[in-house]
Amino acid sequence: MSTSIKVALAMPEDVAAGIFPPRVLDALDSGADLLSREPMTEFTSPQSLALLAEAEALITGWGTAMIDAAVLDAAPNLRYILHSAGTVKYHVGEACWERGIQVSTAADANSVPVAEYTVAMVILANKRVLQVGRKVHAQRTMVHAEAEFPSLGNYNKRVGIIGASKIGRHVMRLLAQYELEVVLADPFVSDAEATALGASKVTLEELCATSDVVSLHAPSLPSTRNMINAELIAGFKSGATFINTARGEIVDQDALLARIQRGDLYAVLDVTTPWDLPPDSGLFTHPNVLLTPHMAGSLGTELERMAMSTVAEAHRLGRGEPLKFRLPPEQRGLTA
Amino acid sequence: MSTSIKVALAMPEDVAAGIFPPRVLDALDSGADLLSREPMTEFTSPQSLALLAEAEALITGWGTAMIDAAVLDAAPNLRYILHSAGTVKYHVGEACWERGIQVSTAADANSVPVAEYTVAMVILANKRVLQVGRKVHAQRTMVHAEAEFPSLGNYNKRVGIIGASKIGRHVMRLLAQYELEVVLADPFVSDAEATALGASKVTLEELCATSDVVSLHAPSLPSTRNMINAELIAGFKSGATFINTARGEIVDQDALLARIQRGDLYAVLDVTTPWDLPPDSGLFTHPNVLLTPHMAGSLGTELERMAMSTVAEAHRLGRGEPLKFRLPPEQRGLTA
Repeated sequence: MSTSIKVALAMPEDVAAGIFPPRVLDALDSGADLLSREPMTEFTSPQSLALLAEAEALITGWGTAMIDAAVLDAAPNLRYILHSAGTVKYHVGEACWERGIQVSTAADANSVPVAEYTVAMVILANKRVLQVGRKVHAQRTMVHAEAEFPSLGNYNKRVGIIGASKIGRHVMRLLAQYELEVVLADPFVSDAEATALGASKVTLEELCATSDVVSLHAPSLPSTRNMINAELIAGFKSGATFINTARGEIVDQDALLARIQRGDLYAVLDVTTPWDLPPDSGLFTHPNVLLTPHMAGSLGTELERMAMSTVAEAHRLGRGEPLKFRLPPEQRGLTA
Repeated sequence: MSTSIKVALAMPEDVAAGIFPPRVLDALDSGADLLSREPMTEFTSPQSLALLAEAEALITGWGTAMIDAAVLDAAPNLRYILHSAGTVKYHVGEACWERGIQVSTAADANSVPVAEYTVAMVILANKRVLQVGRKVHAQRTMVHAEAEFPSLGNYNKRVGIIGASKIGRHVMRLLAQYELEVVLADPFVSDAEATALGASKVTLEELCATSDVVSLHAPSLPSTRNMINAELIAGFKSGATFINTARGEIVDQDALLARIQRGDLYAVLDVTTPWDLPPDSGLFTHPNVLLTPHMAGSLGTELERMAMSTVAEAHRLGRGEPLKFRLPPEQRGLTA
């Protein structure tokens, strides 16, 4: 007794080519009724209107155009939007929520590589591996790590996690394998929940003032803009490392750079404000900073993890099962 | 009904100061009869002979002098040597084994930071994070990671572990949290054991030829010298990363450098041959290489993990319990 589900892809061609290569489309087709192997790149052509008329589920991706009331009017059977990435606010219009369309995301799958990057950086930060390595290569001699940097080590150290987001939670899950003390600042998490996550709940102020590594995993919202402000940054422990894989605008970047230039703060920044830093930014030149170009998230083979998460959602619908990663309508404003 | 155990420290003063600070000595003293808070630095002075006459257990560390038959003759009550680091071959003489002295090591505790360093490097290697970061800083602009380096990602990648040593096993334990395929080459491990460790057993040749990251965790023995030879190195997959946290002499370093200079191999080397590389070594200058100065192992706060492991062993003896990390006499030739 197979139910099934009519699905269509809606995303730019290059995105589809990267995330939904033939072998992934084959996998999708094996448990869902894929209306076309070509993605819709807009919602107005006759071909797109024909697909919209039939589709019960749309699979979306980075750069999908806004699905508004006009699109929904052309899609009378549409009940599900299955997004193959994290953020839906740029393409899931308010009309979708109003009409009760169920929205699922691959945010869980997308959180994995960010958490993995973060934990790797925590471990290297506590031993100052990158700074020591830089000295070895610059001086062409094996330097004495402990003489250069006191208090090295991943033992009896405190890691502060700001935000029990999907990413923050996965970071804490991974950190449970290490002998590090984890503290969490999140206004929506109770002491008991924090304990269940392997962390102690503390205030943001205490977290910043006492952690050897501070890692930001809060969403970018009007209420979190500049949340890591000059006062908190001034309070960072001497020798601490600040890791930002979230969004640049959550941090007072001028205050951060000023503190880094004092010499007793380190930073690993996968995001900045603006994204394209001016070439004369001090962040490019200070030895305490590692800049990476927004690469902690899903890249390369990691896109397939997101695609396969979306394929699994379509297959659930095909079997008449509920979505696993449904985004509750009331949370649509709270996530990145 | 307390049994107890008379223990004395035998190691250089600076080692004792680093690993056995007062709070650790207090911890030791709370469950064992610590004969002196000052370490023996030799075995011939009247003070040392007085301690040896009484001691039932010696706590040793990096740089402890050789414990030979003459030392044992002065220590008629000695039954245990509790080493606060990994390798005992430089100070536990054959006479100790012949007289049935039980030897315990902190190799388990010492393996932890090496495994942590390794896993962090695996994660960063599969995304080429360090190379991308270097380009960002050199070019002062956010480069496009995937355009620079194809096939990025920690998904659908294979990690090859050479040697199911304590360190290799801990690496595999940590990697179980990731979606990476793990293969293991170790002549002393069965297929079933490998499966239990979360890996598939393969030959060393297959491991080197098919792994995206190859990490060396074999001991340095006459039989492993140059084990990673020119032929295996020539067979490494294009774009692979070789991680060595074990010993330089296990690898044909000239062949490794030659392959790196071809441009399609990356390396993270915490050990080299010789340890003090000549300043003109190409390993210092090639952008595909990260050299770190033998710092993957216990450093800084991580020394306390080893000390506390040794303290726990002494306390077990004090309670009349067996050692937890006893080194079987027949394995004394097989470990690093």
